[in-house]
Amino acid sequence: MNYSNENEFLKDYDPEQYSPVAVTVDCVVFGITKVSSENYRKLDKQSLNVLLVKRKDYPCKGQYALPGGFVGQDETLEEAAVKVLKHKTGLDDIFLEQLYTFGDVNRDPRMRVISCAYVSLVNTENVSISDAEWFTVEEAAELPLAFDHNKIVQEAVMRLRGKISYTDIVFYMMPEKFTVSSLQEVYEIILGKKLIPAAFRRTIADKLEETDEFEKSAGHRPSRLYRKKLNSKDT
Amino acid sequence: MNYSNENEFLKDYDPEQYSPVAVTVDCVVFGITKVSSENYRKLDKQSLNVLLVKRKDYPCKGQYALPGGFVGQDETLEEAAVKVLKHKTGLDDIFLEQLYTFGDVNRDPRMRVISCAYVSLVNTENVSISDAEWFTVEEAAELPLAFDHNKIVQEAVMRLRGKISYTDIVFYMMPEKFTVSSLQEVYEIILGKKLIPAAFRRTIADKLEETDEFEKSAGHRPSRLYRKKLNSKDT
Repeated sequence: MNYSNENEFLKDYDPEQYSPVAVTVDCVVFGITKVSSENYRKLDKQSLNVLLVKRKDYPCKGQYALPGGFVGQDETLEEAAVKVLKHKTGLDDIFLEQLYTFGDVNRDPRMRVISCAYVSLVNTENVSISDAEWFTVEEAAELPLAFDHNKIVQEAVMRLRGKISYTDIVFYMMPEKFTVSSLQEVYEIILGKKLIPAAFRRTIADKLEETDEFEKSAGHRPSRLYRKKLNSKDT
Repeated sequence: MNYSNENEFLKDYDPEQYSPVAVTVDCVVFGITKVSSENYRKLDKQSLNVLLVKRKDYPCKGQYALPGGFVGQDETLEEAAVKVLKHKTGLDDIFLEQLYTFGDVNRDPRMRVISCAYVSLVNTENVSISDAEWFTVEEAAELPLAFDHNKIVQEAVMRLRGKISYTDIVFYMMPEKFTVSSLQEVYEIILGKKLIPAAFRRTIADKLEETDEFEKSAGHRPSRLYRKKLNSKDT
């Protein structure tokens, strides 16, 4: 067909003529929680956790999955992610960033579904979660998650690992006030390696400001609490 | 409906029941080219360029656009990007990385089209381009590109700017042998700021190895040519 202008072309255009494709969003929500240590002389250990929901319907009924859903005609990808988080986990107004789009041909048994994944970071002390459960990243890796969600979680961990070194996003997961050693532990969990305390303190110093408060913990000298410096860059 | 198993559910599942959505890939190909300087005493200046194609059909007929196309049922996003590059620009076997997925509701006049953008970096001396043209990034920003492609190019420039500091991807755009000052100029173009030569040499030193060759250029002391050190990390 030869069209003389774009409107004529569009009048003739039939979106139904192509094989159907669907687009979803899947949300990887990370948070730090404390796990009680068996050794009473140690403080509670922290762990990196991911939020999962148990699927109530087919496909993959009964399996754990990332909170996700189809992208509606009239919403952007980010709007879809915000809606999914609110409906499936109760989370609202949290840090959200696009991670990667997953398009393996057979990743969904229903039809061709391309999924745009988002990463959120939350401070677990400040949020209440409904219909969703925290799993440590290690526990999640052991579970057979629905679709390609194991792969998505793995990619998200890699991205987080890459970004905490050159951005300030780690603070989205921290309580308002924290000790330097607790912050170091969070870096160590995410990076998967031990850091040297003196070197860590030096690197992080200009992002932190002292408070007048101290952490009370039995059997230890109280540690000073810090907060993120306000003028420190946001990401 | 209550299904007793997943197969029963899938037999009933009708992908056509939902409003149609399409997924495309769009490719931002960057390369460094030399632009002749008007000042004869200076060497040719380098510039950061992006590859554009003139659209032959509606919509946006006659406008410049990123090389792009619909994602087929049986290809991954990356396979679609490779195919689009080959068909629309003649480029094959080049560095390719997913950038971001663009999902504004009205970004395409035909229907809801969500586009997954890829970034490629090429050494312009090694590739031959068909049906596509190089524009400097500044020229492209002045053009009214099709769809939201101005925004996609802008995002790609930001990503490149972010990544050249902590990866080695810049070398995908360099000839095999180059002077340190030519490499510095490429960094400066991408970062949009001047760098101090001594500091740059120090930062880059462990990524480079000397060759025995020198660049011959009239009116200048010959400069030694370097190449990327082979054991330097790839990205």
